[in-house]
Amino acid sequence: MSRTVYVNGHYIPEEEAKISIFDRGFLFADGVYEVTSVLNGKLIDFEGHAKRLERSLNELDMDHPVNTEELLSIHRELVSRNNIEEGLVYLQVTRGVADRDFAYPKSASPTLVMFTQAKPGLSNSPQAQTGIKVISIPDMRWDRRDIKTVQLLYPSMGKMMAKAKGADDAWMIEDGFVTEGTSNNAYIVKNSKIITRQVGHEILNGITRRAVLRFAAEQNIDIEERPFTIEEALEADEAFITSATTFVTPVIEIDGTVIGNGQPGSTATALRSIYLEESLKAAI
Amino acid sequence: MSRTVYVNGHYIPEEEAKISIFDRGFLFADGVYEVTSVLNGKLIDFEGHAKRLERSLNELDMDHPVNTEELLSIHRELVSRNNIEEGLVYLQVTRGVADRDFAYPKSASPTLVMFTQAKPGLSNSPQAQTGIKVISIPDMRWDRRDIKTVQLLYPSMGKMMAKAKGADDAWMIEDGFVTEGTSNNAYIVKNSKIITRQVGHEILNGITRRAVLRFAAEQNIDIEERPFTIEEALEADEAFITSATTFVTPVIEIDGTVIGNGQPGSTATALRSIYLEESLKAAI
Repeated sequence: MSRTVYVNGHYIPEEEAKISIFDRGFLFADGVYEVTSVLNGKLIDFEGHAKRLERSLNELDMDHPVNTEELLSIHRELVSRNNIEEGLVYLQVTRGVADRDFAYPKSASPTLVMFTQAKPGLSNSPQAQTGIKVISIPDMRWDRRDIKTVQLLYPSMGKMMAKAKGADDAWMIEDGFVTEGTSNNAYIVKNSKIITRQVGHEILNGITRRAVLRFAAEQNIDIEERPFTIEEALEADEAFITSATTFVTPVIEIDGTVIGNGQPGSTATALRSIYLEESLKAAI
Repeated sequence: MSRTVYVNGHYIPEEEAKISIFDRGFLFADGVYEVTSVLNGKLIDFEGHAKRLERSLNELDMDHPVNTEELLSIHRELVSRNNIEEGLVYLQVTRGVADRDFAYPKSASPTLVMFTQAKPGLSNSPQAQTGIKVISIPDMRWDRRDIKTVQLLYPSMGKMMAKAKGADDAWMIEDGFVTEGTSNNAYIVKNSKIITRQVGHEILNGITRRAVLRFAAEQNIDIEERPFTIEEALEADEAFITSATTFVTPVIEIDGTVIGNGQPGSTATALRSIYLEESLKAAI
């Protein structure tokens, strides 16, 4: 069945959803995006994603296509039209259409594209039960990972490198320290303390990261925000990732070495439950 | 007047030239490109661009949309249909259309998009006569600049930073050394010797660069391929850039400091003449 997607004010069948070849999102990767999860037909952390989108646009001097209220209403309309119970809403804003020139166009209207993906079982995925395996790879991305741009070729390459080694994802290493996963934040747990890299230009300021750290603090779990090495991760009691669509997912193996006892850790498991419970309460 | 552009086998008016919002070039910057100059209605260095495209596709495990012979024929058809005397042909290949997933799709046909830009006076631009001004900025791009991907947001930002300072372009600095310009290779001349960074993952292996260095060698001009600093550039006798559409263009000012006597240098001027003369002879 064909999805209904949104392109610049129009709700249309996905087969007809097209943008100009002169869109700067296509020619220059001059665009940003957000992914919001849907559980029980409701949006998780919408406000956080809307705020981060606003920041990304501001950092790139890009115009806002719609205000937050309109953005919410389009999200809800797409969820409704596509009967999404569990899944996600993807949104992308680009600087718009102009004849090709590295310099920004003087006047161009931003492009807004949105679509849903149904993911039945998202809240209870097999990976949450079994944990995932990751490999480490050098972080070769650009230096402003705090801006959520569509320059995602290297994360895609990283995912393929992981698959080639029988793993699920890759953690990226810069100057000897883990930055983050290909599309998630990375954590280890040692002596009941959560260790995760502090935010900055080096990593994305994860919306799920922020919520999970808040819930952890409320549970009186110690948190240390600092870079850690793969060697430290291999010696950890637990490891896990967070993202809008994986919530909290345990990591049970890194570069072929089993972490802890090779089973999803208790901290990750508890945080996943709390996150899902609290997020569902706050979902809109 | 509307251009005729090429999209996946079809010659169509530019207003109708669209691609799916699910094209990985749009969602992941999962695409590569080439720009070939046109002078006297003929293609400059076509073979070099076709070979580099092939390399970019191979580095990314991306399928080839058409063979070199077909690629040449599309170039010529576009030049002819759009009556391009001086200008360029832009081509972009992406991994194709698939539902959004970081992992490469198992089966997707590559997207091929091509269009022309008319640039009357390209071979005799005012900037070639006056020279250009550049500023230096940190190089924040990803680490595989030898692959000509469409991840061009930072070069676009660099162009805007240059404009904001009344300059024409930016030279990017990594670990203290110049890598290249936002869309061109960078050179200095000291004591009649050309100094330019050696090829590697750090810079694009310029097609024009290769030709210009060959012509320089034939003129018995010394060439030293090594990184240089901005401080060294400020003390140079000359500076210049090369690219497919600027050919050889003198740089007369860097970060507000005049280079040499502030006029286009004799080496750059001579190399531009030789490059244009020889390229026109070999144009197809």
